[in-house]
Amino acid sequence: MKLLYLIPGSAGPGFDMDEVKRREGILQGMASPGTLVTADVSGEGPLSIESAVDEANSVPSMIKKAVIAESEGYDGIIVGCAGDPGLECLKEAVRIPVVGPAQVSYAYASLIGRRFSVITPVDSCIGTTIDLIRKYGFNDNCVSIRSAGISVLDITKDPKIAEKKTREQSIIARDTDGADCIALGCMSLAFAGFDEELSGELGIPVINPLKTALYTLEDMVKMKLSQSMKAYPHRG
Amino acid sequence: MKLLYLIPGSAGPGFDMDEVKRREGILQGMASPGTLVTADVSGEGPLSIESAVDEANSVPSMIKKAVIAESEGYDGIIVGCAGDPGLECLKEAVRIPVVGPAQVSYAYASLIGRRFSVITPVDSCIGTTIDLIRKYGFNDNCVSIRSAGISVLDITKDPKIAEKKTREQSIIARDTDGADCIALGCMSLAFAGFDEELSGELGIPVINPLKTALYTLEDMVKMKLSQSMKAYPHRG
Amino acid sequence: MKLLYLIPGSAGPGFDMDEVKRREGILQGMASPGTLVTADVSGEGPLSIESAVDEANSVPSMIKKAVIAESEGYDGIIVGCAGDPGLECLKEAVRIPVVGPAQVSYAYASLIGRRFSVITPVDSCIGTTIDLIRKYGFNDNCVSIRSAGISVLDITKDPKIAEKKTREQSIIARDTDGADCIALGCMSLAFAGFDEELSGELGIPVINPLKTALYTLEDMVKMKLSQSMKAYPHRG
Amino acid sequence: MKLLYLIPGSAGPGFDMDEVKRREGILQGMASPGTLVTADVSGEGPLSIESAVDEANSVPSMIKKAVIAESEGYDGIIVGCAGDPGLECLKEAVRIPVVGPAQVSYAYASLIGRRFSVITPVDSCIGTTIDLIRKYGFNDNCVSIRSAGISVLDITKDPKIAEKKTREQSIIARDTDGADCIALGCMSLAFAGFDEELSGELGIPVINPLKTALYTLEDMVKMKLSQSMKAYPHRG
Amino acid sequence: MKLLYLIPGSAGPGFDMDEVKRREGILQGMASPGTLVTADVSGEGPLSIESAVDEANSVPSMIKKAVIAESEGYDGIIVGCAGDPGLECLKEAVRIPVVGPAQVSYAYASLIGRRFSVITPVDSCIGTTIDLIRKYGFNDNCVSIRSAGISVLDITKDPKIAEKKTREQSIIARDTDGADCIALGCMSLAFAGFDEELSGELGIPVINPLKTALYTLEDMVKMKLSQSMKAYPHRG
Amino acid sequence: MKLLYLIPGSAGPGFDMDEVKRREGILQGMASPGTLVTADVSGEGPLSIESAVDEANSVPSMIKKAVIAESEGYDGIIVGCAGDPGLECLKEAVRIPVVGPAQVSYAYASLIGRRFSVITPVDSCIGTTIDLIRKYGFNDNCVSIRSAGISVLDITKDPKIAEKKTREQSIIARDTDGADCIALGCMSLAFAGFDEELSGELGIPVINPLKTALYTLEDMVKMKLSQSMKAYPHRG
Repeated sequence: MKLLYLIPGSAGPGFDMDEVKRREGILQGMASPGTLVTADVSGEGPLSIESAVDEANSVPSMIKKAVIAESEGYDGIIVGCAGDPGLECLKEAVRIPVVGPAQVSYAYASLIGRRFSVITPVDSCIGTTIDLIRKYGFNDNCVSIRSAGISVLDITKDPKIAEKKTREQSIIARDTDGADCIALGCMSLAFAGFDEELSGELGIPVINPLKTALYTLEDMVKMKLSQSMKAYPHRG
Repeated sequence: MKLLYLIPGSAGPGFDMDEVKRREGILQGMASPGTLVTADVSGEGPLSIESAVDEANSVPSMIKKAVIAESEGYDGIIVGCAGDPGLECLKEAVRIPVVGPAQVSYAYASLIGRRFSVITPVDSCIGTTIDLIRKYGFNDNCVSIRSAGISVLDITKDPKIAEKKTREQSIIARDTDGADCIALGCMSLAFAGFDEELSGELGIPVINPLKTALYTLEDMVKMKLSQSMKAYPHRG
Repeated sequence: MKLLYLIPGSAGPGFDMDEVKRREGILQGMASPGTLVTADVSGEGPLSIESAVDEANSVPSMIKKAVIAESEGYDGIIVGCAGDPGLECLKEAVRIPVVGPAQVSYAYASLIGRRFSVITPVDSCIGTTIDLIRKYGFNDNCVSIRSAGISVLDITKDPKIAEKKTREQSIIARDTDGADCIALGCMSLAFAGFDEELSGELGIPVINPLKTALYTLEDMVKMKLSQSMKAYPHRG
Repeated sequence: MKLLYLIPGSAGPGFDMDEVKRREGILQGMASPGTLVTADVSGEGPLSIESAVDEANSVPSMIKKAVIAESEGYDGIIVGCAGDPGLECLKEAVRIPVVGPAQVSYAYASLIGRRFSVITPVDSCIGTTIDLIRKYGFNDNCVSIRSAGISVLDITKDPKIAEKKTREQSIIARDTDGADCIALGCMSLAFAGFDEELSGELGIPVINPLKTALYTLEDMVKMKLSQSMKAYPHRG
Repeated sequence: MKLLYLIPGSAGPGFDMDEVKRREGILQGMASPGTLVTADVSGEGPLSIESAVDEANSVPSMIKKAVIAESEGYDGIIVGCAGDPGLECLKEAVRIPVVGPAQVSYAYASLIGRRFSVITPVDSCIGTTIDLIRKYGFNDNCVSIRSAGISVLDITKDPKIAEKKTREQSIIARDTDGADCIALGCMSLAFAGFDEELSGELGIPVINPLKTALYTLEDMVKMKLSQSMKAYPHRG
Repeated sequence: MKLLYLIPGSAGPGFDMDEVKRREGILQGMASPGTLVTADVSGEGPLSIESAVDEANSVPSMIKKAVIAESEGYDGIIVGCAGDPGLECLKEAVRIPVVGPAQVSYAYASLIGRRFSVITPVDSCIGTTIDLIRKYGFNDNCVSIRSAGISVLDITKDPKIAEKKTREQSIIARDTDGADCIALGCMSLAFAGFDEELSGELGIPVINPLKTALYTLEDMVKMKLSQSMKAYPHRG
């Protein structure tokens, strides 16, 4: 199967096409035999997504790329950002399944624990994450949303600092908020690749949205399961 | 004060600038002394908004117009669509207050009743309305979302049919769903101007999002109250 | 239009008719051109409302005054206490619109932020505020209720102390509870008039129930919108 | 122990002191050995309670009678109306336990089923019952509130009709709303005494608020358990 | 009436039949005149219940004993553990009323306060308690679940330590979590008998699940009220 | 990887080991390359699970088999019943991941729609399904639970009738309850294999718990993700 990992926004200094291809390589390395993953940027919008404005400026180009991808025979699309920008739009725009890493990760968090925390990169992501939790119906299972205090571009620049700051907030989430599970709220945190090590240190699972999104999408393709056309009427 | 009524999408046949100016006239006629209302389209996107895709394709142009409006000295902005497209983005993009007719109307519905129903134009608006209700936190007060079964452009073309179909669904909402109050879920329904008459027929209030949004925004300007910069961090 | 600001309870030493008239003056000063505001006490009950008992002892006299006001041609009524005593009763008792400052302020808090805190005067108001939040359906949006620790009568006597204590609790609400917006939970705090200054200091909006109630009621009169007779059946 | 069954409102034609004494007799007949039940009206307010206004006009007199009862050595108080008028006030006003038949019955309904319906006498009671359900936190367990369509005074006048109308609505609650349990939402329905027979006919439990309130109050006295003075600060 | 207090699990060193009989004596001492209480273990499972596994290993034997008890003329059954193991099963298995001490205690907590905390013996009980709160529908009223940090068997061995540790967590629950009422989440804590003294010290009610369960069951027998056969279809 | 599909209860006439092996074959046919699926019964309990009692009588044997499977090198366990019996216990009992088909399917339903309905075999499964929805935190997303009215054993005996009855209830769920997605609430319905055809007929997705559980478990093994040891403390 052919999957598109569609990153909202543009490539450029700090997040260039080399980084996009590096991520494609990581995804391809994780994918099941027979799965071909292409990573691409939507082409409009900022280098990183840290607010509702950043999201909105990327979504129209995501819709266009998604429609093209469907016409080119792609079997499914992963939104390449853990704020799930444009998720509802893409679900309307194409008939192939579309998954949002945030939504899938919150679902996983509910399967493996009872109270999860989301770690976002910066404070400006907290509000949009509150909206996601409510919109998806995970109010009962999410106990806190914390920001690591590091910008998305800095995460890729210095993954060690990103890991350290994520660990600090995860410990507070676990010990003060009562979280029994951590959902990484940023794809750059996910690609930094420290989730398994961090999970070992914390003694509670750390959910990597990259992995949950990829494997869930592969499953949906295998199951011939896609978003409900009643919930997301097709705008063809 | 100067207010901008910012309609997402484009003008064109079926929804042309004459209609925009007609709406501006209605708004101006309702506005308080000293308020100047300008109506405009965002300039990108479709003629009418009936899905998440329609919304997304209009939002980047809304953000641009909003930022310009703020720089030109506007005191506040009304999102000109009862699906509140781009509301969170505009709240981030400018410091002047921005109101969404849906959010304000659901708040009013909670003030004057205990169980409201939303009447949307077409079925494809139901899903996005579910998302709004959840995101805004009105789950407890909303008992149903019903569609009148008439497209947005047809509402303006034939307001009598629109009124008839809205009445039919409102009666079911009142008698079957237990609604004690109706929120019109479309600005074209609002501009059709039948809310007071319909309310008289139904015996329960009908909330016109045009009026609630305009007056609430005027109040926010008077009160120097705007969206929280903590909830919607400014992206200047 | 003629509006009645109906204060539950009695006037007397510590809260005398001079204070009532002073408040009327503030209200009149804020009202829109053409609005005439009368402030009055209901005439039975205590000098200040700090518990469910205090509320209950004032409500029958509020109902009587409300019915008289309607017969005298008043166009709307503001409950003059941020615990909204008797709100449902007054909504039943008259056909003109009645607004509760608490309910309107929580609605505003939901419009301009995602997580609000209420600051009440004393601890004994916390329980009744919990009841309001639940009854009105704002569970999802309210993150905390804090008491400033100063009695209602002392607020008027020493507004500087009241401001200081409100600021202290607001800072905790913002930094510990995650509030992005503060709702003042007492009309004496509202009349102390420090809301705009405090908002500037805190960097998040502070909602003054006096202003939100007054302007919302003016709007309801303009919109010919009143409480649903289905939700609040008239007891004429 | 000495318990007071405190009926909000007045006695008079249609609900006279003979009826009060008849109810006292029924209560006394049900009470445990060693329990002495006195029934009394609060003395102010209407003959029956069918709205928030009716409730409010009775509560100040209830508070006075409750305080006197406590001083006379009563051990507990039952609010004599299934709308629980004044419940929070009485909990504040006295240190002896106070129970509301509605609150206790909804708690019982949650113990013996998962989805209960409340049957109220008339439509005007539905709104106040919605408020109770929300305020007490029983949203998840209550599936519907239905009105039998018979006034409180008529229930006592013609209990056979009352039973018939209650049965009709209970069947709809069971078969359409999915209720697995019925809570009678009126003390006159409770005193009509058809709950056990109706339960047999319906095949699902029918909760009599008279019995649940009486026995729960006896238990609270035995357990030395009363309302939390933190939740309901004493106004002595 | 004849009631069975059915303890899940086995008797043995640390929790032997002498202890079971001691508990029977306490129950009998509390029971109303005419009530005969028998305490027994289910006979399979561990000496104490501190996890879902512990519960599950005891439930089949509980079902068997419950069915036998019904056939022997018992009038009701108390689940002898504050995790309510097997409660839904027993409600299905017999027609006589079955009460769970946790469910009854949470209901009482909702009657006498607005925000309760549960104190469990050990951390491993927190997750199963979260499940109970959600399953029973008490989300809105429960503010925290805290563990005293003492094993069930140690509670009986050293009730003074148990009391001390419970007091420590109750104080945090009251002062930090805002609890206005404490529910003891373990029958061994209940049988330690310090609830009234602790309540006096804390100034807020402490609910003893032993007492609430016993008296509520007696009441249900008196009222001929049992679990809904629609909610819990009989498996005879 | 080696996965165990662990069916609660016993094999025997109507559900014999041939049927178990047939199911194993279906699972193996669906599994990814490199996955070996073994199907087995727990060995104690009834032939089919249609109540809480049926579940409880199977769980102790499930725990034993799960612990053995872990010691034998199995990598994960699927609970072989869409009521998820013993799910929390198994999550405690072993460190390898355990998935419940119901929980996974409700999570999928939330990903692909906004309002799902569960179709259970018989009425006696509705109550336990209500408990699952609440316990897992899917209240906001589940709009109805309907029973097809066919026993579990009859589904396997006559899958055509089962499909017909499931279709009838699914149509009501879609058209009356507003469901945009159907979750099959029984593994025998899942193994009947009509989900894709039914989905085509209904125009909305039908979730097959067999597929969602199998693929999600494979993913968890690949991701080295298992239930949180904080949420489900290990009882080794």
